[in-house]
Amino acid sequence: MCKTSPLAPKNGFPVIKSISGVQFSDEAAGIKYTDRSDVMLTYICQGSSVAGIFTKSATRSAAVLDCQNKLNAIKKSEGPFAIVVNSGNSNAFTGMAGFLAVENICSKFSTILKIRAENIYTASTGVIGEPLNWQKIVNVASSLKKNLSSAGIEGAANAIMTTDTFAKGSFKEFKIDKDLIKIGGIAKGSGMIAPDMATMLVYIFTDARIEQTLLEEVVSELNEETFNSITVDGDTSTSDSLMVVATCKSGPLIMNKNSTELKVFKEELKKVMRDLAHQVVKDGEGATKFIEVEVIGGSSYASSRKVAKSIANSPLVKTAVAGEDPNWGRIIMAIGKSGADVKRDLLKIKFGDILVAEDGWVCPHYSEEKGATYMQGDEIKIHVDLGLGNHKSTFWTCDLTHQYISINADYRS
Amino acid sequence: MCKTSPLAPKNGFPVIKSISGVQFSDEAAGIKYTDRSDVMLTYICQGSSVAGIFTKSATRSAAVLDCQNKLNAIKKSEGPFAIVVNSGNSNAFTGMAGFLAVENICSKFSTILKIRAENIYTASTGVIGEPLNWQKIVNVASSLKKNLSSAGIEGAANAIMTTDTFAKGSFKEFKIDKDLIKIGGIAKGSGMIAPDMATMLVYIFTDARIEQTLLEEVVSELNEETFNSITVDGDTSTSDSLMVVATCKSGPLIMNKNSTELKVFKEELKKVMRDLAHQVVKDGEGATKFIEVEVIGGSSYASSRKVAKSIANSPLVKTAVAGEDPNWGRIIMAIGKSGADVKRDLLKIKFGDILVAEDGWVCPHYSEEKGATYMQGDEIKIHVDLGLGNHKSTFWTCDLTHQYISINADYRS
Repeated sequence: MCKTSPLAPKNGFPVIKSISGVQFSDEAAGIKYTDRSDVMLTYICQGSSVAGIFTKSATRSAAVLDCQNKLNAIKKSEGPFAIVVNSGNSNAFTGMAGFLAVENICSKFSTILKIRAENIYTASTGVIGEPLNWQKIVNVASSLKKNLSSAGIEGAANAIMTTDTFAKGSFKEFKIDKDLIKIGGIAKGSGMIAPDMATMLVYIFTDARIEQTLLEEVVSELNEETFNSITVDGDTSTSDSLMVVATCKSGPLIMNKNSTELKVFKEELKKVMRDLAHQVVKDGEGATKFIEVEVIGGSSYASSRKVAKSIANSPLVKTAVAGEDPNWGRIIMAIGKSGADVKRDLLKIKFGDILVAEDGWVCPHYSEEKGATYMQGDEIKIHVDLGLGNHKSTFWTCDLTHQYISINADYRS
Repeated sequence: MCKTSPLAPKNGFPVIKSISGVQFSDEAAGIKYTDRSDVMLTYICQGSSVAGIFTKSATRSAAVLDCQNKLNAIKKSEGPFAIVVNSGNSNAFTGMAGFLAVENICSKFSTILKIRAENIYTASTGVIGEPLNWQKIVNVASSLKKNLSSAGIEGAANAIMTTDTFAKGSFKEFKIDKDLIKIGGIAKGSGMIAPDMATMLVYIFTDARIEQTLLEEVVSELNEETFNSITVDGDTSTSDSLMVVATCKSGPLIMNKNSTELKVFKEELKKVMRDLAHQVVKDGEGATKFIEVEVIGGSSYASSRKVAKSIANSPLVKTAVAGEDPNWGRIIMAIGKSGADVKRDLLKIKFGDILVAEDGWVCPHYSEEKGATYMQGDEIKIHVDLGLGNHKSTFWTCDLTHQYISINADYRS
């Protein structure tokens, strides 16, 4: 494994308090890695709501297809549910064998956990195109069941890592009325990260009491401005999965779209989702800088999003940031190629608070030294005002470094 | 300057015979580089046809805007014409000063060469956003005029290089009826290369006698399958220019769309355009492998092109090739994310002649060793059959290496 990302949270994995109704365990099944946990099990109590969003890749994995079928079929299941995730092999493009592997895993966990196979969701992450040795996962099923614990979420976060250099977790605790509500989540990155959806695995749990359809709507809306707004390399994985589970153990029933309860819940869920999305970027392969690209003044949302995405995906912008070079000409280039509605002479570009360019040229007060000093920071903000309207969009990405090449050219991940 | 690309033509710059009606010269004006030629002048005789295709970037340079205006205004000019190109500064995003620079250059060369300013085309390539010191170009105008020579094309090819590691030229000689026709061209790359159009400067000259409108049509058609089908990093420059000049000094007048003469001419022009396009890729920043991505069996041209482009632009595919890793799973990923019409189980993937995957899985006869041996070559062919129809598309690209990062992160180009 590579050295921990310099952008990793300074305090390590956060404290995630137990969430009533969910339990976790992890095991070393030896699928690819030999010295670490590589399978996680989550057990979710009866009466929970489950929402999921998955990759739109045309070559998505057997597990993703299976999860989608299950979520489509059972809009409101009684549960209990389980989630089984392995790292080291993505079980994608593995033909019929891929489907059989998913079936065998679900069937085994169904027997052991005494829950219906239709309520078991799987995910696999790792190398594409190699057969998944599902027997190894089945072999650790009993032990996974035995070790289930409401305190096991950090172990689960560790088990799902591939080229990740740190385990990603996030936690919020807040009140709705007088009731304490918790939201805790875990995620893995960290290559093949591009929006559609966010190219990774994310599992978020809350004890809030929220109705299934409403949970789905909220998750879908928040996904657009969190996991769908990050990119590491513009490549999209075959395994993207986001699942949000509400165990309905705490607080008032949230079923009204315009209620204060929903507003509070959404705000906090967004924080957890954004925190995890940022952590994925901060653990982008080879990342040394976290980049926020904020585009305002667009004539439409689509237009501001195109510009933000074009800048965030540009290898020339990302290598310039890696080299701490305030090469704003490359930002102009990325805006120009985006295909968005752009008027060159209305553009305003800033690094943080430093105005760099406006009126079709470099700003007369801009100094290259100031720009260069700003670029030495860990967190770089590129701000673009298109000057055409009120629409805005923010993307997050990381720089493109030698380490990205080393990770992806020098051995198979 | 970096070490010459390992993919550079073994025999160096080709012999390009004099083309009746065009003369070239180059000079060291000291715009950015201090030890080499950085301005080229081409003088084109009266009675020539001139076709041009330019970048669609919304932030394109002053020179590009000026060329487009001129070509739109004068559909059939008498000439003579001139082309003035500098390297080291792109004169893009330089506000009104950029337009004044172009105007001053054209005005000076108009006086010196005694041709109308409207018939002078300029291009600038290099860093974006810094003012172009046009006075330096004007200072060498007389000397450029004095040194004009029909043998000066190699010097011109050298003068327009930026991060290029070798000068790019191509030449064909063939007969239409009994008349010998010549086509010779030069190009520069080599970063910010992505189709729209080809992100570079290309100048091609022929003595063929072809009518202006027909030349424009032919160039536009051939551009799609040559310069618009290459990519180095998916970034698009603000200076892309392709100009094709026919001096009308040799052979029969080509004015009929369906004539054999046009067919022969087109075939040979395509070879020169493709050769130059391939050389640009072979000099892609940091390139060590030349990659051809051939997609057949598409349900539409757009669909096969999307898949070819998605593979050719994928950093994970390109780093795998750099690492000589036959990681075909990443090709599956790139196909999946392309957004094209794809049926997973109909896909066939080959490395050269080696069948890798079909029927939704790895081919039973495929051996990783064979794939790995194939990957050691300099020229890698990735062949994808979508199995859905008869449409096809080919893209050319290079691998993504540490050297790309060094060139773009470690100093400003």
